[in-house]
Amino acid sequence: MTDHKESIAYISRGADEIIQEEELLKKLEKGKPLRVKTGFDPTAPDLHLGHTVLINKMRHFQELGHHVMFLIGDFTGLIGDPSGKNATRKPLTKDEIAANAETYRKQVFKILDPDLTEVCFNSTWGEALGSAGMIKLASRYTVARMLERDDFKKRYAGNQPISIHEFLYPLMQGYDSVAMKADVELGGTDQKFNLLVGRELQKEEGQEPQVILTMPILEGLDGANKMSKSLDNYIGIEESPDEMFGKLMSISDILMWRYFELLSFKSMQDIEKYKVSVKDGANPRDIKFDLAEEIIARFHSQEAADAAKENFIQRFRHGAVPEDMPEIELQSVDGSLGLAQILKQAGLTASTSEAFRMITQGAVKIDAEKVSDKDIDLSAGSTAVVQVGKRKFARISVK
Amino acid sequence: MTDHKESIAYISRGADEIIQEEELLKKLEKGKPLRVKTGFDPTAPDLHLGHTVLINKMRHFQELGHHVMFLIGDFTGLIGDPSGKNATRKPLTKDEIAANAETYRKQVFKILDPDLTEVCFNSTWGEALGSAGMIKLASRYTVARMLERDDFKKRYAGNQPISIHEFLYPLMQGYDSVAMKADVELGGTDQKFNLLVGRELQKEEGQEPQVILTMPILEGLDGANKMSKSLDNYIGIEESPDEMFGKLMSISDILMWRYFELLSFKSMQDIEKYKVSVKDGANPRDIKFDLAEEIIARFHSQEAADAAKENFIQRFRHGAVPEDMPEIELQSVDGSLGLAQILKQAGLTASTSEAFRMITQGAVKIDAEKVSDKDIDLSAGSTAVVQVGKRKFARISVK
Repeated sequence: MTDHKESIAYISRGADEIIQEEELLKKLEKGKPLRVKTGFDPTAPDLHLGHTVLINKMRHFQELGHHVMFLIGDFTGLIGDPSGKNATRKPLTKDEIAANAETYRKQVFKILDPDLTEVCFNSTWGEALGSAGMIKLASRYTVARMLERDDFKKRYAGNQPISIHEFLYPLMQGYDSVAMKADVELGGTDQKFNLLVGRELQKEEGQEPQVILTMPILEGLDGANKMSKSLDNYIGIEESPDEMFGKLMSISDILMWRYFELLSFKSMQDIEKYKVSVKDGANPRDIKFDLAEEIIARFHSQEAADAAKENFIQRFRHGAVPEDMPEIELQSVDGSLGLAQILKQAGLTASTSEAFRMITQGAVKIDAEKVSDKDIDLSAGSTAVVQVGKRKFARISVK
Repeated sequence: MTDHKESIAYISRGADEIIQEEELLKKLEKGKPLRVKTGFDPTAPDLHLGHTVLINKMRHFQELGHHVMFLIGDFTGLIGDPSGKNATRKPLTKDEIAANAETYRKQVFKILDPDLTEVCFNSTWGEALGSAGMIKLASRYTVARMLERDDFKKRYAGNQPISIHEFLYPLMQGYDSVAMKADVELGGTDQKFNLLVGRELQKEEGQEPQVILTMPILEGLDGANKMSKSLDNYIGIEESPDEMFGKLMSISDILMWRYFELLSFKSMQDIEKYKVSVKDGANPRDIKFDLAEEIIARFHSQEAADAAKENFIQRFRHGAVPEDMPEIELQSVDGSLGLAQILKQAGLTASTSEAFRMITQGAVKIDAEKVSDKDIDLSAGSTAVVQVGKRKFARISVK
């Protein structure tokens, strides 16, 4: 059954781990579409490219004819953070969850086929579980095994409080797999423990355990930290084409290959051809153009992608950004660094007062955009091309 | 308010701990009847005197005009032992629980006033809690604090499994106090942790925290281990008057004073008078008679108590049991010791074969009852007066 082997190769692209591959093969050999589960948070969805790594993997399964289930974890969302320690995690209303689900649909259906995607809500079976059912569920796992989960272990060892309900959430997630009769569950590497709980609960319920597939956590624009809004190193899928283009062009050449593997729909063979061409002297910038174009076409349109590319080229032609420029790392203070300090420390101006003057004169650009606010700063983890006048450039990374 | 101080003195009789006495005084000073909660297991109730220590304390509150709530923990009983590790803790049906409640009523109303006792079932509010409510409840406590409970701490340190649902039970018990708006909760010293959880949950719910009152665990007939069926050192409250009388007369003089404090309804002043009379030369046996009579009158009738006393005296007159006899401790083998071995090791016969002969001849008595079965044995923890012929006696304790 070579085509199952081919399916597994396709499914494995970019994956961190599959537990177990031979089980996946057996499931495929049954010849029935697999039930593929992926869980998402019910809080306001504002997806960035990091989230799409999993959604792309769901798409791979869809392309192979499997049944993809997009699970919105609204049951826990309806509860909020019951410890009350997290003010931002207030209980959501049913209406808010319905609105969030709609936003999710709008965003993920740019990647997934709506006709082949089942959107599920775990409140359906979570509420029916009842208090007795919750106690029974809690009896399925021991305290010691739960404390083996990396983050729990660290918090327990570090005397940081763990509320008991936090032990119930992995069990609820596992119970979702039972209720959904999942054959496969996808998740980030940080979800591995929870995905394994699903396998065990399914076995106890007499179900064949789900295969779990973990995807790596995508690095942000800095190439170092995970992509996240709080680190401001992300590309939101609802950002404008120009913003997306500029950000994607700012990534390093190494990160570009990573993004190709996890974000592009081009085949690995085509990506390999790109690599060969670079070895043979092609400009990586041109290949980055192709990546940026593909991503923008996906979330906006081909026309928008073409226009963004044209705009980008225009801006840089005016600015004459050199291909080689100094790469400078600067240390942040309390999480960010002021632009005047950056200019001075990078040697782009002689002093901060000169820096302020240049900004006021409109002679300073960040990522080819003119800066007029002299109090602007770059946060730790961000990278940007900073330009003073026509000739002074540096690629600044704030640590 | 001297009478509140008197109430507290009465309430404190035999108590191990009151948290906090000043809070109890404040509650009493409000002049309203206190809501007094005591929880009982929903499994087949076959009460022994050990259980009545708490029930007697409930009676004290009743005598002082307070509202006593007899809580049957049927909610967890309906679930059974969900880990399935305890085969004897199968889920009870509603009918079984109703039958057990009836048996409880029959037994406890020999001590409590039925008209002043509210029988409650925690399934009333436990089921209404729902799965979301259970998660919220679980958020009220941390894993680390739960692991401070003595038995959890030992099991965790000893790598013995603790199922997560076991963490939910103390919280449920605490939630009972919230639902019942308890002013006071009574429990054994082994319940202290759980009773304290109730205080905290009440505080979080904006209720005045319950005062907790712990009672010591009653020692069994051996005066060493806690009274329990499995150790066979107990007096069941449905045992026959003669059995009760014989067992109560077998206890040591020291244990007699303990039983007076925790089981008798005589005032501490009257008990003090008994002690003085013994110092002045009275026979402790006669005082033990009074204790036995009181207990049997409580669970049977005054007539039954009189008759049991008469029977006891008759038997001992025939047997001419001396007041002083050797007290011998013997080591059990696998939890018990055969009668022939006992007779030989205690020096009452020269050999086990002589022992068997004496038993067959009907010359051996245990607690003044003739023994005919030569394969009889005494279990570890039990104490009995063993007699061979007319003159050889020993009080045997099997360890």
